[in-house]
Amino acid sequence: MITRDKVGRVTTAPTHERLRSQIEFTLEIDKLKRILRRNTLVDGSRRENDAEHSWHLGMMALVLGEHAPPGTDLDKVIAMLLIHDLVEIDAGDTFIYDTAAVADQAERERAAADRIFGLLPEDQTARLRALWDEFEERRTPEARFARALDRLNPLLANFHTEGGTWARHQINSAQVLRNVALIAEGSETLGAYATELVEQAVAKGILAP
Amino acid sequence: MITRDKVGRVTTAPTHERLRSQIEFTLEIDKLKRILRRNTLVDGSRRENDAEHSWHLGMMALVLGEHAPPGTDLDKVIAMLLIHDLVEIDAGDTFIYDTAAVADQAERERAAADRIFGLLPEDQTARLRALWDEFEERRTPEARFARALDRLNPLLANFHTEGGTWARHQINSAQVLRNVALIAEGSETLGAYATELVEQAVAKGILAP
Ligand SMILES: [Ca+2]
Repeated sequence: MITRDKVGRVTTAPTHERLRSQIEFTLEIDKLKRILRRNTLVDGSRRENDAEHSWHLGMMALVLGEHAPPGTDLDKVIAMLLIHDLVEIDAGDTFIYDTAAVADQAERERAAADRIFGLLPEDQTARLRALWDEFEERRTPEARFARALDRLNPLLANFHTEGGTWARHQINSAQVLRNVALIAEGSETLGAYATELVEQAVAKGILAP
Repeated sequence: MITRDKVGRVTTAPTHERLRSQIEFTLEIDKLKRILRRNTLVDGSRRENDAEHSWHLGMMALVLGEHAPPGTDLDKVIAMLLIHDLVEIDAGDTFIYDTAAVADQAERERAAADRIFGLLPEDQTARLRALWDEFEERRTPEARFARALDRLNPLLANFHTEGGTWARHQINSAQVLRNVALIAEGSETLGAYATELVEQAVAKGILAP
């Protein structure tokens, strides 16, 4: 809503409260740029952060969308991917092969979602929280395809950095194939492609059998 | 399209050529994470890169969308923002107050768009290129709103880092207000808000009058 002040100038007064919350949220989420993941950039130069990772997944949804099941709402997938890691501002990045951290991950991430999405006006808190819950529950085609891209991305990065986190953390192909199963749940084509990548990685000696 | 090999396993063979191009593009755009902008993160700890910046703008479109003109296609705005800086992989980041660099910026960026979007299958090259052209031409509400967010973002960052790039590059309020005009073109509310921020920045002494 727009109003004008005494001299006829547009002011933000009536929307002030909503806009203030939205800007506060915008500034707060800048912190996602400082949450580091285990994997590096494709050139190996440094670790990747969650914000640039989320951008990369959004881009993957844009160009790989045809491999989602017919009828998948790709705009929703993109929105999901942009927000999916925000909880890590408080809860940190949990390495998927770290069993102890994975155990209380859900609880830590829910508390983070309460706080971070709670910065927004109520209707937007509800909307983004629902989107994040949908991603986490993995029951819709959108959530499953989003998750598939989230798992395909580090596989690509590891494959193209001579094994990357696989080598460093002594991960074997059986462990990677459990993630490939999640990719196949979201996209049959990308699941098949990921399986081929794992086979090639083992053949090249950059992933333990 | 899905087929199965001799032992009945799903293979990516028929989609191989498209998928190969899409994955090549996905890997190539990783380079956007290494293109540094002039401004820093909100905490001042380091310079921001284009990939995390693009993510941040996508998030701003998600939460500030109600300030776009009615009928604006926000999903299109988000897609535009995700791709808008890809050309900087080749053309580099052009500082908006650097007149010499701005002069041949358009030409360098068009060549970059040819190469980078050209990595994709033809139909996708055309689709993403059209989206980027639309953003650059700034004639649709979507392009104007996307541009408004792109200009609001550093203004917010500078305001919350005691002047940031303004102080370092001796920018004054008249120069900033030219950018604010672009914000107002995309969103009356955000334009008014940005004007208030500039006035406050001058009053606080973090921006030269
Ligand atoms: Ca994650």
